[in-house]
Amino acid sequence: MIIGILGGTGSEGSGLAFRWALKGHDVIVGSRSAERGQVAAAELNRLLAGRGMVRGAGNQEAARAAPVVVLTVPYAAQTAAAEEVRNLLPGKILVDVTAPLVPPRIECVQLPNGESAVVALQRRLGSGVRVVSAFQNVSARHLKDPDYEIDCDVLVCSDDNAAREMVVGLARDAGLRAWHAGPLANSVAVEALTSVLIAINKGYKVSASGIRITGVPDADKK
Amino acid sequence: MIIGILGGTGSEGSGLAFRWALKGHDVIVGSRSAERGQVAAAELNRLLAGRGMVRGAGNQEAARAAPVVVLTVPYAAQTAAAEEVRNLLPGKILVDVTAPLVPPRIECVQLPNGESAVVALQRRLGSGVRVVSAFQNVSARHLKDPDYEIDCDVLVCSDDNAAREMVVGLARDAGLRAWHAGPLANSVAVEALTSVLIAINKGYKVSASGIRITGVPDADKK
Repeated sequence: MIIGILGGTGSEGSGLAFRWALKGHDVIVGSRSAERGQVAAAELNRLLAGRGMVRGAGNQEAARAAPVVVLTVPYAAQTAAAEEVRNLLPGKILVDVTAPLVPPRIECVQLPNGESAVVALQRRLGSGVRVVSAFQNVSARHLKDPDYEIDCDVLVCSDDNAAREMVVGLARDAGLRAWHAGPLANSVAVEALTSVLIAINKGYKVSASGIRITGVPDADKK
Repeated sequence: MIIGILGGTGSEGSGLAFRWALKGHDVIVGSRSAERGQVAAAELNRLLAGRGMVRGAGNQEAARAAPVVVLTVPYAAQTAAAEEVRNLLPGKILVDVTAPLVPPRIECVQLPNGESAVVALQRRLGSGVRVVSAFQNVSARHLKDPDYEIDCDVLVCSDDNAAREMVVGLARDAGLRAWHAGPLANSVAVEALTSVLIAINKGYKVSASGIRITGVPDADKK
């Protein structure tokens, strides 16, 4: 699968790129500057040491080449990044990883206009883009350690069942346990939970708290 | 501790009453009708079989007698139940268990006016009431089985640190793992998560999914 990651030079985007490349996916690390994308890709390829391969590109080229586009930018850049490629998105799957954190109090939920950031994005892009919400709760911290079992589940929300199913699969390819978590509107829980986890990180002096879903008997089957 | 439970005849309220009574708390099972409260209390006392004791009362009497008042009514009844006792609440801790589920699509997050139900309640009651949000994600299903280890954490939110600490303690008294999850505004994550868990219950054909917080090394210490 060709996967284009917008903002792929950041820690979350490059971490996911690393894990997907390990699994054999053809990952394009996108950046506003093609050169920065290529520099980040070269670094990832050194880390991958032949176990997989990524390439770097500008965000537009990444979005053009890939049927699955992943948006991993800070909230303040979400709209601009999506606008940069919006004409390339119809018919594609757009995976939004954005948590609407509002500095400096990122440990406090501050939903923009009282709604999910990804619901606002879907409305902006129109129903022709297959928007899926995922990965907001996963700390980037251990993504580039291929042997590290990340102790955090991925809640995947979308109004497009087939697109959601594909992203659940991509999460599993990244070595993560993933769940169908309902319609796109349910993403508000996941986005807000990011601030709760930051509050727990601060309050309990840890760096990467996460969540697990319990009570599903075959939960350990990926 | 005297604990008054408004709507204590419902499954969540009576489940918490049972567990707190087991732990030696003096629990008042409140209902709009004192008689129904007494009937529910008599049933719980049969189940407790001498290992603890609860009493039944009208909601007003329960709120008057207790320094900690717990609100466990359906969302549609939240405002009316709080209004019924509002003059009795200043200075007390009010633990709101309400998840703003909107039937029939309770598996879909539908935040009233885009905000947390408990934040709206705090605004209505004023800052003189020490409002704490907790227990929304805990299924009532196994609360009355004293030996059942419930596989769901409690996220506790409040702008009043001392009140939050007390409710973290009460959750532990009920045999649950509990976390300081930040200010009251963070409750929106917890309330919304209730619909996500209902979506998971439906999608994975289970009856009581829950969440665990991970990544905190001493998490198993209650």
